[in-house]
Amino acid sequence: MAQAPSSRTRIRRVPKRGLYDRATIAAILDESLVAHVGFSVDEQPYVIPMLIARLGDRVYMHGSTASRMVRKLSAGVPACLTTTLVDGLVLARSAFHHSMNYRSVVVLGTATLVEGADERADALEAFTEKLLPGRWDEVRQPNAQELKGTRVLTMELTEASAKVREGGPVDDEGDYAFDVWAGVVPLALTAGAPIPDARLRAGVEPSAAVTGWAAARGDQTICSVRSADSSAS
Amino acid sequence: MAQAPSSRTRIRRVPKRGLYDRATIAAILDESLVAHVGFSVDEQPYVIPMLIARLGDRVYMHGSTASRMVRKLSAGVPACLTTTLVDGLVLARSAFHHSMNYRSVVVLGTATLVEGADERADALEAFTEKLLPGRWDEVRQPNAQELKGTRVLTMELTEASAKVREGGPVDDEGDYAFDVWAGVVPLALTAGAPIPDARLRAGVEPSAAVTGWAAARGDQTICSVRSADSSAS
Repeated sequence: MAQAPSSRTRIRRVPKRGLYDRATIAAILDESLVAHVGFSVDEQPYVIPMLIARLGDRVYMHGSTASRMVRKLSAGVPACLTTTLVDGLVLARSAFHHSMNYRSVVVLGTATLVEGADERADALEAFTEKLLPGRWDEVRQPNAQELKGTRVLTMELTEASAKVREGGPVDDEGDYAFDVWAGVVPLALTAGAPIPDARLRAGVEPSAAVTGWAAARGDQTICSVRSADSSAS
Repeated sequence: MAQAPSSRTRIRRVPKRGLYDRATIAAILDESLVAHVGFSVDEQPYVIPMLIARLGDRVYMHGSTASRMVRKLSAGVPACLTTTLVDGLVLARSAFHHSMNYRSVVVLGTATLVEGADERADALEAFTEKLLPGRWDEVRQPNAQELKGTRVLTMELTEASAKVREGGPVDDEGDYAFDVWAGVVPLALTAGAPIPDARLRAGVEPSAAVTGWAAARGDQTICSVRSADSSAS
């Protein structure tokens, strides 16, 4: 197992779950559509969801030129980019040992504005391809005005760590005699059947990117998780 | 539509997507298993995933007494709790107008340590019930040592806002003539078939909480989304 790249990235709580190798970190970032990016303004932290894409040893975010967050991050303040993939409910025999299976990555550092035209273009392509591989070549490319209105930010994966919990519950030895069902309920982000836009031109079928992606995902049944009664307020 | 509770919670980017009514905020928090909590240590923001549960006008988190994050937050530093539910890929006719459908909540404020025995007990029950409604009454309740090792933190929903994007792509007028498929691919966190623990006692069937939850979710097929090729590093 690789070592933590810095003291502040070292996993302290349950250190056996800490992973620092680049392949593990890259795989979790690549599977995450959205990361949560933290930065402070006047001592108040803000945590904002952003679409991410990774290219090599960098992770990219983007936003409007008019975005306060983008302006703040562009100024070079310390930031933290975190993503978490929820893999399952871990149901133990005691309330205390209930848990979740997950894979998370934390990247510490400073976001910088991408100014080079080539790197910007590559990142914009990566965002579209992240949503749907093959999509970039099917759609209209950004024009000059769109490029001008978009800021691309990047963080290096220098100070990054992953934390992973997997497998079944770990109960206190005395609780294994307890006659309650224990195990894992797997969870995954899944895709439903594509919904055509109301203004789709007659006769336009789902593109190769859409059908290829759906085919690779197998069954398209939606079985949405409502983890608690959300009708109360 | 309710008004923003403070200037710093007001949605500035695409303000029409901002929602401030308590029912909307509560529903998003209740559907979110995990939130991302931000706080700063020595000017460096950290963003950490935490299981959350809501009771009334408060959102709760918990962690070990030994956790640095829990100690920091207990000390009363400014914090930000954010959660994002990813609802779909929005596929437009231009790369620029690609987007995601999502529902997010941002809570600003200060986390405080829950010291009252009754509120602590209610929160611990809420965490287990959040994972699986009905589970609390099936499992061994926390003992004195477990209670002592657990810290419960809470934030008030005073300064909270929601942001929601829904519906299909919005393209530039000239792009609607373009013969590319456009629409939405719905995404949802879905459950697979429960996996029994290796040490489950012979003859113990899934509990009422597990079967009731699975039945309410309908089809259990897993169709895991890999949003990008995660084999590269």
